[in-house]
Amino acid sequence: MEKVNVIEKFSLFTNYWSSKIVGELNGQHVKFVKFKGDFIRHLHENEDELFFVIKGKFKMQFRGEREVEIGENEFLIVPKGVEHRSSAEDEAHVIVFEPTAAVNTGNINNELTVRILKYL
Amino acid sequence: MEKVNVIEKFSLFTNYWSSKIVGELNGQHVKFVKFKGDFIRHLHENEDELFFVIKGKFKMQFRGEREVEIGENEFLIVPKGVEHRSSAEDEAHVIVFEPTAAVNTGNINNELTVRILKYL
Repeated sequence: MEKVNVIEKFSLFTNYWSSKIVGELNGQHVKFVKFKGDFIRHLHENEDELFFVIKGKFKMQFRGEREVEIGENEFLIVPKGVEHRSSAEDEAHVIVFEPTAAVNTGNINNELTVRILKYL
Repeated sequence: MEKVNVIEKFSLFTNYWSSKIVGELNGQHVKFVKFKGDFIRHLHENEDELFFVIKGKFKMQFRGEREVEIGENEFLIVPKGVEHRSSAEDEAHVIVFEPTAAVNTGNINNELTVRILKYL
């Protein structure tokens, strides 16, 4: 049972849109992700997702051109079934909290899809 | 679907050891708690708990005098079944992630037990 230093963990990797698992509890993963550029629009049929910004900011874009900008010390919960797309002009460090069954690109399969998760 | 500003939410209440629910996803609650002083030693039979420090620091004390100090930008996951006790010399602002079924004092019932949760 060791504590996790968030800043230290984020310094251990550089690749974007590549989730790293740093914790697991109650069937949920705590994932660290570096955002930069545009992710793919997708939805999760069965999983709600929480996005907590540690550094920087990003925009979560929804259907109908609605978007929410999330900055440091802010979080957003995206309920299951809601299409969304993350977009970060500059690098953002984000903690994602979601069920262990969740796949990063949800209902979409493309080159961004990560099926084998990496642990930090 | 509104974002949550963590600092703003913590400014909305002052009482210690009184969890406020600020989010819910996948059967889990996101709770904001202000720690100060000593909580009661307890365990949760069925729930893992995550403690993320936003401001200040606190000590998590375990059996056998083992303890872990958790400061800003650090988190600790306490697995189900593990006795623990939070202790904060000065005020600490902590986000707790745990199943909606979790009761703050776990297997103990005393004056610190909160059965009716408050939303922020």
